[in-house]
Amino acid sequence: MKLICEGLELSDAVLKVIRATATRTTNPILEGIKLHASEDTLTLSATDLEISIEKTIPADVKIAGEVVVPGKFFADFVKKLSNEQIELSLTEENTIRIKYTDSEGYLQCMNADEFPIIKEIYSPEKITIKKVELKKLIDKTVFSVAVDDARPILKGCLFEVENNEITSVALDGYRLAMVKTSVTSTADKLSCIIPARSLNEISKLLNIDNNEETIDILVGQNHLLIVDGSIKILTRLLEGEFINYKQVIPATTSTTILVNKEQLEDGLDRASLLARMDKNNLVRFDIREKILTLTSASNIGNVTENITISLDGKDISIAFNARYLSDCMHTITDEFIKINFTSQIAPCTICPAEDENKYLYLILPVRIVD
Amino acid sequence: MKLICEGLELSDAVLKVIRATATRTTNPILEGIKLHASEDTLTLSATDLEISIEKTIPADVKIAGEVVVPGKFFADFVKKLSNEQIELSLTEENTIRIKYTDSEGYLQCMNADEFPIIKEIYSPEKITIKKVELKKLIDKTVFSVAVDDARPILKGCLFEVENNEITSVALDGYRLAMVKTSVTSTADKLSCIIPARSLNEISKLLNIDNNEETIDILVGQNHLLIVDGSIKILTRLLEGEFINYKQVIPATTSTTILVNKEQLEDGLDRASLLARMDKNNLVRFDIREKILTLTSASNIGNVTENITISLDGKDISIAFNARYLSDCMHTITDEFIKINFTSQIAPCTICPAEDENKYLYLILPVRIVD
Repeated sequence: MKLICEGLELSDAVLKVIRATATRTTNPILEGIKLHASEDTLTLSATDLEISIEKTIPADVKIAGEVVVPGKFFADFVKKLSNEQIELSLTEENTIRIKYTDSEGYLQCMNADEFPIIKEIYSPEKITIKKVELKKLIDKTVFSVAVDDARPILKGCLFEVENNEITSVALDGYRLAMVKTSVTSTADKLSCIIPARSLNEISKLLNIDNNEETIDILVGQNHLLIVDGSIKILTRLLEGEFINYKQVIPATTSTTILVNKEQLEDGLDRASLLARMDKNNLVRFDIREKILTLTSASNIGNVTENITISLDGKDISIAFNARYLSDCMHTITDEFIKINFTSQIAPCTICPAEDENKYLYLILPVRIVD
Repeated sequence: MKLICEGLELSDAVLKVIRATATRTTNPILEGIKLHASEDTLTLSATDLEISIEKTIPADVKIAGEVVVPGKFFADFVKKLSNEQIELSLTEENTIRIKYTDSEGYLQCMNADEFPIIKEIYSPEKITIKKVELKKLIDKTVFSVAVDDARPILKGCLFEVENNEITSVALDGYRLAMVKTSVTSTADKLSCIIPARSLNEISKLLNIDNNEETIDILVGQNHLLIVDGSIKILTRLLEGEFINYKQVIPATTSTTILVNKEQLEDGLDRASLLARMDKNNLVRFDIREKILTLTSASNIGNVTENITISLDGKDISIAFNARYLSDCMHTITDEFIKINFTSQIAPCTICPAEDENKYLYLILPVRIVD
């Protein structure tokens, strides 16, 4: 293998694919980046066996070939060469020579034969979606996935397609996030569960030039593939049945409030300062007529926030883990939101004041003694 | 105590003085911020007994008084109120009430009587210096102070005034940094040793509007005081004899090179990537005619950097801890620097190519076997 490429393009590509390398592994090849030179391109790829990221850049290839370089070190080194033209060549001792200006580095490499083969997807279904909408589907739900391993299926988001609408759902037993948007799809009905880690990488790597640009998501039996220009992201799907999330959402409501999202977020922020000193992280809501009173207390003090609301239904007192509320406030961009309550021990739901179908957050309360 | 002030001014002041609070202490009052309201100002102060920072802001004082609030929590809370007008009042239960818009918080306070009294400086000497120059004196030397406690006197910078010139010196047994600049002083000769932590805070808090602005440094027996507008910084001085640093600087030179600082810094950066994988962090210099060759190696590879230089004297091979070299490269802003060598086991010195008196860095080599 021997080629010349631009430092800036190489370092950009390395920093993208390195996100797929395994960080805590006993198999060093999963910490590596595979370089594959052929015709007039250099293809870099990395995988931790769950997600694979591949990027192709132009290169003046003198001798085709492939090799696996140690990922972290190669990335650090190449990052410091963004301004240079770089010559990469494989020596007979299986080291790669990185030549730039009058200087050079040599790095021990691994054999490309030992690198895992990145799966092909056979006869996949195709979902076409606007890139901005895909990013929203991910960013507005993925924070609600379960983080512990008790139910591995909950460590991913459910993507469900039906009637040209896609729904993304994440839940962890204490809260649920659900976002919908329109798509076109080759399948009438389709569902798959995508690991949260892969979704986070997809969201970060999506290259959005304008709001109308669309992208194809290819869904196979066990894998999902996204091709965005010169970047290919392939992820394994989680296997198993997702929870029947629809039955978790309360059918009835006894109290609905309309509140300015920013006011609620700011109030929660301040109340959280005290709430989080306690492991329960408790914020209490007292809803009376036109006022929502947020209170939190710890041994060093207490905070009382009064927020003007419009109320439909009965007064209610209820308490929540402040973090779950703050998490979903941070993702909401609407000016006004609706919060629905059923009872002190039933989950509340949060949705936009306009277009209630766009998203829904659900949070379980913490039991309080009056 | 009762007063009204602007959230933005209060939070700015809190974030400045909180830097002086103690972080790991068994005495909770040292984690507090003292609020002192009188006439039409609120004065905030904090100290860890080594450094004290005080800042005064305008306030509409209804009832004069003082109290100590828990520093970290008060800072976090006030930070979230930058846009509001805040009313602070002391209740009978020794809690402070923080009122803003329609909401409020209550915080447990400590008694102001228990707060350490901040020392006065009697009949101090006065050094007048440009603020930008004071910042340089600090930033270009303080990184070289000793970090371990073996010789506490080396955990500060020596400030020496003589003939209207001030010299700042820091050294840790492996390297030395020395910077000079002109000042006016009430004392012909003066020297003091200032703890590195205090210097770092002074450098961060200095409010520099223009390059000509000067500031007074008041030096007493055991303390040093700087007043910059509404901010007062008082620091304890270190007691004891500083090392006779002048005798450490080699009198003779057998090799002098002139090198582009940026080229050397970039080369060191790349060589360091490999060097730092080894605990010795070794970079080797081979100086031959017009070329400085930097090499570093570890078990995963090696780097060879060739840098064009102009050489005066004998060829030499010598090795250094890469970090010490990088540290001083990061503070140098000159385009070209001179490096002087005496032998493979004697320290090298680094100074600007022009105006050699401005600063000097000295680094001990690491012994190598050829």
